[in-house]
Amino acid sequence: MSADGATDLGSFGLPSRTAHPGEGITPEELGLAARNHALPAEALRWEITPPGLHYVLTHYDIPDADPDSWTIAVTGLVDHQVTLSLATLAAMRQHTVRVTMECAGNGRTGVHPRPLSQPWITGAVGTADWSGVRLSDVLGEAGVAADAIDVVSCGADHGIERGVEQDYERGLSVQLALGSDVLLATAMNGQPLPPQHGFPVRLVVPGWYGMASVKWLREIRLVDHEFAGYQHQAYRVKQHKDDPGMPVTQIEPRALLSPPGFPDFMSRARVVEAGVTDIRGRAWSGWGPVTKVEFSPDDGATWFDCTLAAENGPFAWRAFSTVWQATPGQARLRVRATDGTGRVQPLDPVASLGGFTNNADAAVVALVR
Amino acid sequence: MSADGATDLGSFGLPSRTAHPGEGITPEELGLAARNHALPAEALRWEITPPGLHYVLTHYDIPDADPDSWTIAVTGLVDHQVTLSLATLAAMRQHTVRVTMECAGNGRTGVHPRPLSQPWITGAVGTADWSGVRLSDVLGEAGVAADAIDVVSCGADHGIERGVEQDYERGLSVQLALGSDVLLATAMNGQPLPPQHGFPVRLVVPGWYGMASVKWLREIRLVDHEFAGYQHQAYRVKQHKDDPGMPVTQIEPRALLSPPGFPDFMSRARVVEAGVTDIRGRAWSGWGPVTKVEFSPDDGATWFDCTLAAENGPFAWRAFSTVWQATPGQARLRVRATDGTGRVQPLDPVASLGGFTNNADAAVVALVR
Repeated sequence: MSADGATDLGSFGLPSRTAHPGEGITPEELGLAARNHALPAEALRWEITPPGLHYVLTHYDIPDADPDSWTIAVTGLVDHQVTLSLATLAAMRQHTVRVTMECAGNGRTGVHPRPLSQPWITGAVGTADWSGVRLSDVLGEAGVAADAIDVVSCGADHGIERGVEQDYERGLSVQLALGSDVLLATAMNGQPLPPQHGFPVRLVVPGWYGMASVKWLREIRLVDHEFAGYQHQAYRVKQHKDDPGMPVTQIEPRALLSPPGFPDFMSRARVVEAGVTDIRGRAWSGWGPVTKVEFSPDDGATWFDCTLAAENGPFAWRAFSTVWQATPGQARLRVRATDGTGRVQPLDPVASLGGFTNNADAAVVALVR
Repeated sequence: MSADGATDLGSFGLPSRTAHPGEGITPEELGLAARNHALPAEALRWEITPPGLHYVLTHYDIPDADPDSWTIAVTGLVDHQVTLSLATLAAMRQHTVRVTMECAGNGRTGVHPRPLSQPWITGAVGTADWSGVRLSDVLGEAGVAADAIDVVSCGADHGIERGVEQDYERGLSVQLALGSDVLLATAMNGQPLPPQHGFPVRLVVPGWYGMASVKWLREIRLVDHEFAGYQHQAYRVKQHKDDPGMPVTQIEPRALLSPPGFPDFMSRARVVEAGVTDIRGRAWSGWGPVTKVEFSPDDGATWFDCTLAAENGPFAWRAFSTVWQATPGQARLRVRATDGTGRVQPLDPVASLGGFTNNADAAVVALVR
């Protein structure tokens, strides 16, 4: 946090608020939508999201990273502080994990009233093979002190959010950080990370919403308390301003249709030929395996079980399919996923002040001819 | 165009209209903004736009292209019809052209009243090295008949726009097509085209707005008239509904700032430290070389000439820089480009019914502390 006599950072940004009744998307929301992009729905046809189609959310600016001088400092409650170069990371044992990553704000524009922030519809998702070094291996080399509680990851992106100047920082429990799944990733689908995905190195926390996977990683700091920085206050599911709320953690189940037929340019509604139509899509959950996906051709009045393809590891989406006897007229196509923990994707939007974890689907509108 | 008894494609889409006074961005505009993305302003620091940051506009769906079976048919008024496979193209002489490409609708949301379509602010631009075969070489092999007037390029993307079902098609004059600059590109920055940029092969028409550079190229058809398909009616600068208007062709001059300081998350306004501040950006024109860029720290009241870097060939943007003595308070930073044909970037938005070729800049708001 920082302000001097001449300026007032506190009032520089825009206050947190929800949209007024009937208020259209604001210029500031559009500014975010123009720079942070969703997965186009038809790209759900690919198990691994092609380059440039994976969703992106950057809180501040994409940093200008020099890989030759880039280092990651491991500091705080460790037996010996370590500074890692990219060459050090490259010399360590490499692992690859296939991960479906989703923004915690995915579905935000479906929430009423709409919180004013990055205005995601439902496409803030993507799947990649992330490769790099296990965070547990890095922590093993530094040695975790007995009184360490949280592992704080600090990114190189710097900005102001609701009046608070900050580097992007998030904490993970030592227990989670020492698990085998969390990576310091230096490659995405076998290529160096694109700048917007955290070049040259980022955290990847499989199964968690994207806010945990800190990009442009500069420092790993072990602390003796549960870290409560700005991004932990921001990413909470609250029902009102004074609600302490619950932290956003793992990804709620969601299924999305790879929409059939072809689109209308402006509305993205679909034209489908009458007859037997293949219905396909992908479903995921950060809590457990997807165990069921249902399809409704009539806006949720009737449901049909889909066929699930083989799993692609514990953290990647799962393909589903069925057939639909399409008859002429307009149809509203919906899907819903259930996971192994019994979580079921809801039909109605999940309300919260910040518009997080709203995993209700949005109907695909189709004109059958 | 297609409709049958059971449906009405004509009323399926949304009518062409402009926003009502005070009307926020509509859900349909947001749907387009979520899937088509701009260059984030800070990415102007790179001469070649990194993968996934180059602007994208897809009218319909990104096709599911099979490169092994992909062919391009050269048909119509040619001496002998030719069908090109990707292997055929790969065996021909390869060329690389560095091109700054911009959407004709860039700046649309700055137009009053705002036309409802893809709601670009100012970032619908990017620069790439495109590699492939010259269209003139392909036409040379097929032989252009004496009565050929236009070369129509047909893409594989299929959809409905304002009620009209179509494949995406655009024509070029034979004269332009036989010039040395137009490519059938199969690579972007030395890599196969990403799906959203036209994989496996697209047209690249340097200096022209992006609508001319047909993606997912399936057919090249020579015709004996000036082609007047849907996309030629749509991409016209008109002042009212009955105005025949002028076709959208080459790119008007524009400069953009690589914004100084760091951003506020929501508003994207900048925080800048007082003192000497480097001002940098890039400027381009499809009509001729950029010959001047000016910078104003006070919303256009006073202007300072910037230093221009060396040119990067005839079709790529040109870097500019200057320094700014930033003093505490709020500032509105503007830039404007002039090209060798005498075209000067205007200060006020260029109005038209479709919101095309509005090359006025948008001020960068900065808080100096």
